Amino acid sequence: MKICVLGGDGYCGWATALYLSSRGHQVVIADNFARRQWDYELGVQTLTPIRPMPERLRAWKQLTGETIDCLSGDITDYEFISSVVRSFGPDAVVHFAEQRAAPYSMIDRKHAVFTQVNNVVGTLNLLFALREFQPDCHLVKLGTMGEYGTPNIDIEEGYIAIEHNGRKDVLPFPKQPGSFYHLSKVHDSHNIMFACKIWGLRATDLNQGVVYGTMTDEVALAEALINRFDYDEIFGTVLNRFCAQAAVGHPLTVYGKGGQTRGYLDIRDTVRCVELACLKPARPGECRVFNQFTEQYSVLELARIVQAAGRKVNLHVEIDHLPDPRVEAEEHYYNARHSKLVEMGLKPHLLSESLLDSLLNIAIRYQDRIDRSLFLPKVNWRNARNERRPKVTAPAAESSSAGHSSYDAPFEPNAVSAAGNGHFEQGE
Amino acid sequence: MKICVLGGDGYCGWATALYLSSRGHQVVIADNFARRQWDYELGVQTLTPIRPMPERLRAWKQLTGETIDCLSGDITDYEFISSVVRSFGPDAVVHFAEQRAAPYSMIDRKHAVFTQVNNVVGTLNLLFALREFQPDCHLVKLGTMGEYGTPNIDIEEGYIAIEHNGRKDVLPFPKQPGSFYHLSKVHDSHNIMFACKIWGLRATDLNQGVVYGTMTDEVALAEALINRFDYDEIFGTVLNRFCAQAAVGHPLTVYGKGGQTRGYLDIRDTVRCVELACLKPARPGECRVFNQFTEQYSVLELARIVQAAGRKVNLHVEIDHLPDPRVEAEEHYYNARHSKLVEMGLKPHLLSESLLDSLLNIAIRYQDRIDRSLFLPKVNWRNARNERRPKVTAPAAESSSAGHSSYDAPFEPNAVSAAGNGHFEQGE
Repeated sequence: MKICVLGGDGYCGWATALYLSSRGHQVVIADNFARRQWDYELGVQTLTPIRPMPERLRAWKQLTGETIDCLSGDITDYEFISSVVRSFGPDAVVHFAEQRAAPYSMIDRKHAVFTQVNNVVGTLNLLFALREFQPDCHLVKLGTMGEYGTPNIDIEEGYIAIEHNGRKDVLPFPKQPGSFYHLSKVHDSHNIMFACKIWGLRATDLNQGVVYGTMTDEVALAEALINRFDYDEIFGTVLNRFCAQAAVGHPLTVYGKGGQTRGYLDIRDTVRCVELACLKPARPGECRVFNQFTEQYSVLELARIVQAAGRKVNLHVEIDHLPDPRVEAEEHYYNARHSKLVEMGLKPHLLSESLLDSLLNIAIRYQDRIDRSLFLPKVNWRNARNERRPKVTAPAAESSSAGHSSYDAPFEPNAVSAAGNGHFEQGE
Repeated sequence: MKICVLGGDGYCGWATALYLSSRGHQVVIADNFARRQWDYELGVQTLTPIRPMPERLRAWKQLTGETIDCLSGDITDYEFISSVVRSFGPDAVVHFAEQRAAPYSMIDRKHAVFTQVNNVVGTLNLLFALREFQPDCHLVKLGTMGEYGTPNIDIEEGYIAIEHNGRKDVLPFPKQPGSFYHLSKVHDSHNIMFACKIWGLRATDLNQGVVYGTMTDEVALAEALINRFDYDEIFGTVLNRFCAQAAVGHPLTVYGKGGQTRGYLDIRDTVRCVELACLKPARPGECRVFNQFTEQYSVLELARIVQAAGRKVNLHVEIDHLPDPRVEAEEHYYNARHSKLVEMGLKPHLLSESLLDSLLNIAIRYQDRIDRSLFLPKVNWRNARNERRPKVTAPAAESSSAGHSSYDAPFEPNAVSAAGNGHFEQGE
């Protein structure tokens, strides 16, 4: 199949592009490399040293003989995305090209507005481009399990049959997203559902759980292909962050009681799920939803699993309970259905200690690149503005004007509090 | 109370500002006058000749002794909306300041993107401004009954108790909005609900039905206070449009079978509902939802009511069934609860023939201002681009580049079809 991977430079996008290429699909990546810019802005970097895109694509070509083209551009620019769709003529478009970190969207108003405008406009543009130039193309859109929140009933896959006052209907599952980022995904979901209805487009909305791991069979072929591994409080998904913390002897940062339960999956399952969705496309006019995760864990359960795995490689791992910077239930019912992808052939990679070993080993291998100041949460959901730059005293004044002035600075809670932006004042 | 009316130059906003002022509240209007610009863009104008804002405010002052201030600015500009909130310190903000026409949002990609960005960013800015500068202020937000779509179950007021697999929860009512505009309101609703949860803001989301009428007791005091009356296919709400059509002997334009059933209300109830919401604010952290309409009608029922009312004033009124330019069920179950505002004291003005007479009389009085070419739908939901400018032949070429080139031009379906944008090709 001809498959276009939007956001193919990112964590899941890169691994997906390689996997699809290895499976014989003709792959084109489109990316605006915005994620690299956010690293500079936040003063963070991936644990693993990722190479420039051209170097990675050359390595892939040398190793496999397969060509992946990369188009540089922004899907909020309609000229760009429509030209990609017209020139490549994809059978499927896999859409990862969004700002994907909840804490990033909660930094302040500008980041909230940016996240929603960026994600909503990008997806609207893609829908219009498909309608105008490739109406039979299958849209495979990355949503998130976080769209559902934590209702006190079982979570279904996108739709729920409701009987009410003696009448019945099947309706979109009610959404209670937990950040301006998660809200942007809910907005997307509604927009996509509508576009399928009015224009007969085909779409699969993959409500993905929290992804862990960085290695896939393809990424593992050569260090030049290495995937990114975020461990900071903004972009680091929880299990990756825990492993980085364990590697350098930092306590695992559990927010609140740690009873927050979510769906998780191995990145090797992400790439397989995307292919499964592509291989059996939605029907014209259909907007189907798959819950894309393999196992449920509470945050505290994950911390204990990492603790146990650490013991096997002689790491002493402690667990810290921090005031929860998010506004969320710290203990709650959670049971989400996730059978559709399994029925289509997914064979899950379950989280086991051996798997954790490899995750831990990556963290240990690159531990010299870990900046411990990036572990602690600095973005509190309760604040309208979260100042991430440390308070700078006179001698260091020049560096404070740089976008990534916090890069080398340790976390200074007192200094930040003194500036009127204490982060945990309502956190308990 | 100190009440700020955002969008106070508009159809509902102006009537609301006057009503609240007449009831002794201290009122400030904020508006960017964008609606006037859209008139130019679309080549339409209000049936009633509305005066410039300063003239109207002077007339109001002379007639009642009451002062209403008007601040000119755009709420997508955070400096503007935050300065309004800080300087005025309102007890309540009534938020009408959005692009509110479904067909406008369906013209093409630019209009869809504009509508969603304008509405979502304006509301996000307002939420942040309240959080930062007036956290106890009550947000009264105009939503729409169109957020719900037409489910096959009874529509509740914002939330629904669901029992599923033996467990229970009360969740946001599932939304199935029918245009990019209606989607923008759903996005707003989710954002507001979240802001109340994380920041403890107070909000009332008024899911309003289709408003009809133009006169309120306050507007009626002097011609200088007259409210706008839209009858065109883009901004004209259905009953107002039918009355304008009846006044000039144009058949009533019913889309499809006319079984589309919606909630309706008199503009005098709009203004009263808003005051009721202000007088009994939501609790901190509460996002309550009222369905703001008084009666349900199908479009065909409305057409027949206008037909009967026309007979009484010696107008012969015909009904035309056009192919439905929207993608919607032409016959469906519809039963929406709307008891909360009545419980709070609303005494509905029900649609009666006498009421219709006054609506018809306004249309008759200003019939010389009616442009019949504006009645017929030119925006088809099934198209990604709806060309509203008529095909211009060589001699008239200069005028085609103007934003409102269609202003004086009659509707030319064949010319439009010839340009590859036939509007009803899938409409039957």
